Amino acid sequence: MPQDKQTNRRIVLASRPHGAPTEANFRLESQHVPVPGEGEVLLRTVWLSLDPYMRGRMSDAPSYVPPIAVNDVMGAGTVAVVEQSNNQDYAPGDWVVSQSGWQDFALSDGKDLFKLTGPVLKHPSWALGLLGMTGFTAYMGLLDIGNPQPGETVVVAAATGAVGSMVGQIAKLKGCYVVGIAGGEEKCRYAEEVLGFDRCLDHRSDDLAESLKRYCRDGIDVYFESVGGKVFNAVLPLMNTKGRIPVCGLIADYNSTEAASGPDMLPQFQSAILRKRLRVQGFIITQDYGHRFEEFFSQMSQWVEQERFVFREDVVDGLDNAPETFIGMLEGNNFGKVLIRVAGDNP
Amino acid sequence: MPQDKQTNRRIVLASRPHGAPTEANFRLESQHVPVPGEGEVLLRTVWLSLDPYMRGRMSDAPSYVPPIAVNDVMGAGTVAVVEQSNNQDYAPGDWVVSQSGWQDFALSDGKDLFKLTGPVLKHPSWALGLLGMTGFTAYMGLLDIGNPQPGETVVVAAATGAVGSMVGQIAKLKGCYVVGIAGGEEKCRYAEEVLGFDRCLDHRSDDLAESLKRYCRDGIDVYFESVGGKVFNAVLPLMNTKGRIPVCGLIADYNSTEAASGPDMLPQFQSAILRKRLRVQGFIITQDYGHRFEEFFSQMSQWVEQERFVFREDVVDGLDNAPETFIGMLEGNNFGKVLIRVAGDNP
Repeated sequence: MPQDKQTNRRIVLASRPHGAPTEANFRLESQHVPVPGEGEVLLRTVWLSLDPYMRGRMSDAPSYVPPIAVNDVMGAGTVAVVEQSNNQDYAPGDWVVSQSGWQDFALSDGKDLFKLTGPVLKHPSWALGLLGMTGFTAYMGLLDIGNPQPGETVVVAAATGAVGSMVGQIAKLKGCYVVGIAGGEEKCRYAEEVLGFDRCLDHRSDDLAESLKRYCRDGIDVYFESVGGKVFNAVLPLMNTKGRIPVCGLIADYNSTEAASGPDMLPQFQSAILRKRLRVQGFIITQDYGHRFEEFFSQMSQWVEQERFVFREDVVDGLDNAPETFIGMLEGNNFGKVLIRVAGDNP
Repeated sequence: MPQDKQTNRRIVLASRPHGAPTEANFRLESQHVPVPGEGEVLLRTVWLSLDPYMRGRMSDAPSYVPPIAVNDVMGAGTVAVVEQSNNQDYAPGDWVVSQSGWQDFALSDGKDLFKLTGPVLKHPSWALGLLGMTGFTAYMGLLDIGNPQPGETVVVAAATGAVGSMVGQIAKLKGCYVVGIAGGEEKCRYAEEVLGFDRCLDHRSDDLAESLKRYCRDGIDVYFESVGGKVFNAVLPLMNTKGRIPVCGLIADYNSTEAASGPDMLPQFQSAILRKRLRVQGFIITQDYGHRFEEFFSQMSQWVEQERFVFREDVVDGLDNAPETFIGMLEGNNFGKVLIRVAGDNP
């Protein structure tokens, strides 16, 4: 179902999921395209970013982002084109990053927009990935909290995912030994051969803990956490003294519905924090590092210019495919940064 | 049994404890007083410091300090007097802080000694407490990792213990609202009335979590962790966004012999770290902050001079009472900094 200029298709949260989301938790609606008021612009979505954190917003349990209300449009970062403008800062045809969510059209007063200029216009979807929140998350979490030093061992979960693939590549640029963990042989081969990780381990293998130990002969200095669960359990015993664990996500737990059964591993984790003097720190990129976006953008633009990065996009066409794609991403079915091309081939 | 100058009484690790240590894990031996070789000094122990971390050294499980070998003398910080010296840096009668352990006499080449000079000589045991490792641990853990700001809420476990009592007082000096947690009414009253904490809560009360919530109406910004277990479980839900948890000890777990039964609280802790963007960091004072001892000593000496601190010592006479006193300390029977006065009243 392609985008047309008379109708605003939008996907709303129909009900809150219990455990893994299903398509029944989403509803596709159609409305008239809204009309911009004074000072407002009308945005047309071209690219829609799907990210694991959105699972948290579908629940009303405490999370690090406020919940989406039932019947409200699903939130998300987008790359959009200004269609009409009553705002002197924006002209029709401008490309912007916005938070307009899972819909074709949206209004904005311009305050939450970031106008795209310069080289990123050659590849506007990068403003959601390599040069956007994804890259920013990898960059700040790894460098500011992880503080990797040349020769140290950095382990990256979800190694071929949007954030993980960048974490590993930045760590390589910093002279680290980088071990990825990913789901399946194909992804592992990709991490080693294309992304340039030193090793990549399949988390589906039976002997995850043992294999990881073989790959990390000098222990682990930095573990970039976005997964939790059994990957974390394999990593913890290998952490070195003074190791750092930036916590950016816990996708393995997002769909859990009850407390995990015993034994209680918490005392063991606390004991490791004490014995090994670990630093474990959660972060939310926009809230903790919003003021450092320029620093990231300038450094990353330079690296991109120098073609130092591989950034794989997993593109799915059509807004109506967003729910299925999102559900699959939470199960690890994606391969790279997940994007919905809302506007088709001809924006 | 008093100290005499012909015999070196020493308490060795007779066997490794399984769970809580018992007196059978220790053995009192007598030897001749050793004779200092070239460059060595003979030390006579006056004060012996007992600290919870020593429990870790009695086991051979991985810990943050190397295990004591069976039949070796129990390790500990001491305040000692130089009896004989073949070392030009030390003269008989000098007072030093040493790591000579649970015994009357020991040899040293001088490299591990810290000579006491100036006002601390008026109260040499303070070199093990207020102005020693105890104070240094409280100071660095609270200020460097906890980074408390005026008006923030600081919660301190083991509030009347050696480290805890100082953490709370430093936090008060920094303008914080300070809530202690201690065992029993008497200790709680002492924390509020003598140490000047804003509130102190009995961890034996049935409704720990609820009471703590009442006392911390604005949540918790800094939790100084030295306990673990149920106190931690009560604290975690109250931690504020961007809260800090310096981890200095986990006394509640030191004697545990097996993994705690379920449910597994680890995912909940990880989720809190992520959602609340907590910083959780273990530290070992000498290893992480040894280079900043002067800074601590100078600031703390000034505060002591200004009589800004109350520091309670829980003194037990006689080296032979060290095992029983140590065992009791792990159960929370002490009230303040635990010291064995090895040399009696007349050093």
